[in-house]
Amino acid sequence: MGGRGARGGASGAGRRRVGGLEAYTVATTEHDRATLAAVVADGADGTPTMRIDVLVEDAILTALARHPVNVLTEETGWVDNGSALTLVMDPVDGSANAAAGVPLSAFSATVAEDGVFTEALTVWLETGRSWWAKTGVPSPLRTTGRTSLTGAAVSLLRPHPANPGAAAAWWEVARRAARVRILSTSCLEGALVAQGATDAFADAATDTHRLVDIAASVVLAEAGGGAVRDVFGRAVELDTDLTRRWSGVVAATPELADELASVLRKAYQAERAAN
Amino acid sequence: MGGRGARGGASGAGRRRVGGLEAYTVATTEHDRATLAAVVADGADGTPTMRIDVLVEDAILTALARHPVNVLTEETGWVDNGSALTLVMDPVDGSANAAAGVPLSAFSATVAEDGVFTEALTVWLETGRSWWAKTGVPSPLRTTGRTSLTGAAVSLLRPHPANPGAAAAWWEVARRAARVRILSTSCLEGALVAQGATDAFADAATDTHRLVDIAASVVLAEAGGGAVRDVFGRAVELDTDLTRRWSGVVAATPELADELASVLRKAYQAERAAN
Repeated sequence: MGGRGARGGASGAGRRRVGGLEAYTVATTEHDRATLAAVVADGADGTPTMRIDVLVEDAILTALARHPVNVLTEETGWVDNGSALTLVMDPVDGSANAAAGVPLSAFSATVAEDGVFTEALTVWLETGRSWWAKTGVPSPLRTTGRTSLTGAAVSLLRPHPANPGAAAAWWEVARRAARVRILSTSCLEGALVAQGATDAFADAATDTHRLVDIAASVVLAEAGGGAVRDVFGRAVELDTDLTRRWSGVVAATPELADELASVLRKAYQAERAAN
Repeated sequence: MGGRGARGGASGAGRRRVGGLEAYTVATTEHDRATLAAVVADGADGTPTMRIDVLVEDAILTALARHPVNVLTEETGWVDNGSALTLVMDPVDGSANAAAGVPLSAFSATVAEDGVFTEALTVWLETGRSWWAKTGVPSPLRTTGRTSLTGAAVSLLRPHPANPGAAAAWWEVARRAARVRILSTSCLEGALVAQGATDAFADAATDTHRLVDIAASVVLAEAGGGAVRDVFGRAVELDTDLTRRWSGVVAATPELADELASVLRKAYQAERAAN
């Protein structure tokens, strides 16, 4: 936590008064786009940290200081308070959208109890709309129930043309699906799968996903009848090593999740073997 | 206009009381996704009409009945009332999003005076947020001012892998741009260019755009310093022939619009010449 005070723009007193949604509103009202998008540090996960991430995360961590749970975040990293509970949190998922003014960003938090994801909340920051689920609690979430990629509506991370294997995987899904979207906000796209607005969401074998990008989708999608997989078969599990990456697949059913992961993996591997 | 009463679900009295935004709210509250997405007719433009389009368009045309302007819409087509004013209207841009529950759809209307686009309004239906501009009236809209595709954030229509020329054009932009989004709502994506949230939006040479998809962006983007082009150099102009199509490009500056149209056209033509 050392040195965080120097990174935030708001005063300490101001930070203590506001929660995450308020901090987002204040940040986007008081700062222009260049200021919000400015890279102010390297996050604990090794990726650049935008000022908007810091402003919101600082406010939330301050509010959490009275609750002795462990916290795993994108920017600060792992805070071990010796609790059986860990809060896995992305204060601003879709930072680039938020900083630019594209109204698609989300706060997302997931509770892990003894390492198992049990509760998740994703809040669409620009509207306040939210998705919540807890293991064992009946949920109104229901996925579309689609079991096959043919004819599916799929959200994808943006393509990476410079990575031939991943590019081939991306294109193969675009070829098979009926509809492709790129909203650039993984947590919100996962929530849309959970509520049945779209059939699936995937990182097309680029290993871009960090745990904070997909942990909430595990709880939300499963509550709605869906499933989360990794393209390369790795378990999506609590890990305090923030350098770990996944190619997450969130889908309406376990069958669709397995098919999508398999299609992406095979297209990726075939391209790599050919070149 | 014949036969429209039989297509709408609401009663005549109910339709007369509500405007477009209210009609959208009522439609998405009272009908499930399958009902809203059901194809109930072929629109005047030759594309399938979803029930959600009819419900909203009916409400708006009823409200407009007291105003003797000409109207050009996606579903009903051209209504000539002998006026110098024509309202070019898409009641629900992003119908597939709206029907599925992806919260990205827009009402969009553009006024043409003696054939020239002079005023436009785009309303994001799920939040009520709106973008308006009128020729000669100072506007708060301002694009990003970006003049080059390298490093730009670009929204695209989804790729069409079965169309090799268009697929090559799509991929060439993905290769050059820093960021690609697919929001599946042309009017909203055009408005985001006008307000400076993204640098450009384009139909990558698929000739999918109808006039109702890009007319508002002409007024909004130009008010913010941007420009609209067609990939193949056709004028984006008022035309009562609803079978006409464009590959629209909306960009932060005339320079970027010209570059993006040129990159798309050349990639399309090179692929067509090679195969």
